[in-house]
This record gives sequence, structure tokens and C-alpha cells, in this order.
Amino acid sequence: MVILGIDPGFSVTGYSILKKDKNQIIMLDHGFIKLPTTQPLDTRVGIFYDLFVQKIKLYNISTIALETSFLGKNAQTFLKLGYLRGILYLLAHQYQLKLHEFAPREVKLSVTGYGAASKEQVAKVLSMLFPAIAQPLKEDVTDAIAISLCGLWQSENKALFKA
Amino acid sequence: MVILGIDPGFSVTGYSILKKDKNQIIMLDHGFIKLPTTQPLDTRVGIFYDLFVQKIKLYNISTIALETSFLGKNAQTFLKLGYLRGILYLLAHQYQLKLHEFAPREVKLSVTGYGAASKEQVAKVLSMLFPAIAQPLKEDVTDAIAISLCGLWQSENKALFKA
Repeated sequence: MVILGIDPGFSVTGYSILKKDKNQIIMLDHGFIKLPTTQPLDTRVGIFYDLFVQKIKLYNISTIALETSFLGKNAQTFLKLGYLRGILYLLAHQYQLKLHEFAPREVKLSVTGYGAASKEQVAKVLSMLFPAIAQPLKEDVTDAIAISLCGLWQSENKALFKA
Repeated sequence: MVILGIDPGFSVTGYSILKKDKNQIIMLDHGFIKLPTTQPLDTRVGIFYDLFVQKIKLYNISTIALETSFLGKNAQTFLKLGYLRGILYLLAHQYQLKLHEFAPREVKLSVTGYGAASKEQVAKVLSMLFPAIAQPLKEDVTDAIAISLCGLWQSENKALFKA
């Protein structure tokens, strides 16, 4: 199982790609993307699509994990966030990936054992699980790692329930 | 110039494809699509993408016209509308189409000469312009035809300004 955890956004997209290998969790890739603000919106959407097509092929991604989005202060920003989420749904369809959405509370609960954990608490757990990752990480990347980890653990639990 | 006017939605998507040929406007296609509610979201997004890839290729579409969306009562419905709009932006990028967004007021003004026109007034103008189209049309289709017509006329005006 190779999972892409992603926190999409037009200003910054954080992503994390984890592989489950027997009992080991291996971090294959993580980072962030800034879409060029000088380019028109359709070009930026296209760059986002092309980039994740590459990642899907390169790492043989099988699953995408996303956090549920809630309306913030700006409705048009929220709508545009939908553009990037729509691309992820399309990629899930085109490359036959599973796609799971988790509430922010589920992600925190899964990673720290506490659904109302602070960002610092989440970051601390991640730095213990992945000591090799350079700190500090951009917040969007921390979020993406937490989402990927939640997705990985949740799907294991689901698999257990099925057995 | 071949323009796709579209009013996307997960329950109903209205669309209209017009061709400008010298001084004639020809309606190539119009109708609506219902995405199967029994299918998961990624499949529905994929169906939407595949359908409009077909239309783009079949009719040699050069331009997409969309109406600006505003937040309604349901934020999650609004976010999901973003998924379909994101697909249209991706298609614009992948097939090198121009994409224009118009405010609902601009569309009404362009079609009827009055920015606060009622839906009935818009429908009446369209039935005079396209007498061959069977009436009554679904509201989403009327909207899409109005959007395509606005896109066609607006791009002509822009072309005039350029000359």
C-alpha cells in the first residue's frame, strides 16, 4: 500500500507519500508545491494535475487521503479549493486509486490519540515517528504527513474489521 | 469559433454548444446530464470529464463559458460544484481552450439587454433566436444556452475592441 496524503491549496499544497512494507512505514516523499500565481487558473490546475500524475506513476500510489474541508472566510477561495479536490477525485478515477476523506478531528485522534490535539502536538508525534525528516516542517507538510498516516492506519483497521 | 456554455452540477449539468459561422450562429448540441447518484464521487467526476472530452473532440470546441458561482445554502454542495469547475479548468488547459467566466447579471444583460431579466424573459429571447429548439427546455439547459450566447457575443466585442 502506497498512500498520498495531501492538503491541497492554490497558495501551498502539502503532500506526503508513505509506503507500508510489512510492519514498517517508509516515507517515500514529502514536500510542498506553490502554483505560480503569474499563470492563469487553468494552467495552475493543469500543473497540479500533471505533478500528481507523475507522483502516482513514480511511486505506484494506491490510495489518496484528504481532509474534509470547511468553509472559511472567503467563499471564492473555498470554491477554488474545490477545483484542486476535483482533480484528485479525477485522478482517483483515472488511476483506480482509493480515496478517503477524514475529518480534521479524526486525523488528530489517529496521530496523537487526542482529537483536539494542537498543531504542535501533532508535529511532535510526527518528529518521533520520522526522526530522519528535517525539522521544522512547513505547516502544510505536517498536515499532509498526518493525513497520510491517518489514512494508512485507518485502512489497516478497516482491513482488520473485514478479516 | 465553437463555444461550450455550461452550467455544471452534480444533480444536473446543462450544456450548449454553439458555432459562429460568418454571421450565423448554429446550435450544434444542447442538453443535460445527470451523473448517476449510485456511483461514488470519483466515478461521477470521471464520467463528467470523459463526457466533455468527447464533446470537445467531436465539435472541435475552442472556448468554454461558465457563470460565476456564489455560495448558496449548502457549503459542501458549493465545494463539490468546485470539483466539476476544476475539471473544466483542467480541460481548458489540456485542450488549449479559452475559458471565460461571466457574472449572472452579465449573461442576462447580454441576452436580453437587461441585467435583472427574469428566467422567463431569458427563455423567451432564446426561443426567438433558436425557433427550431423544442420547448420548454429544462432550466439548466436554458441557462447553458444563455451562457454560451453571452460568451460568443462577448468574445466578438473583445475582438472588435482589439481591432
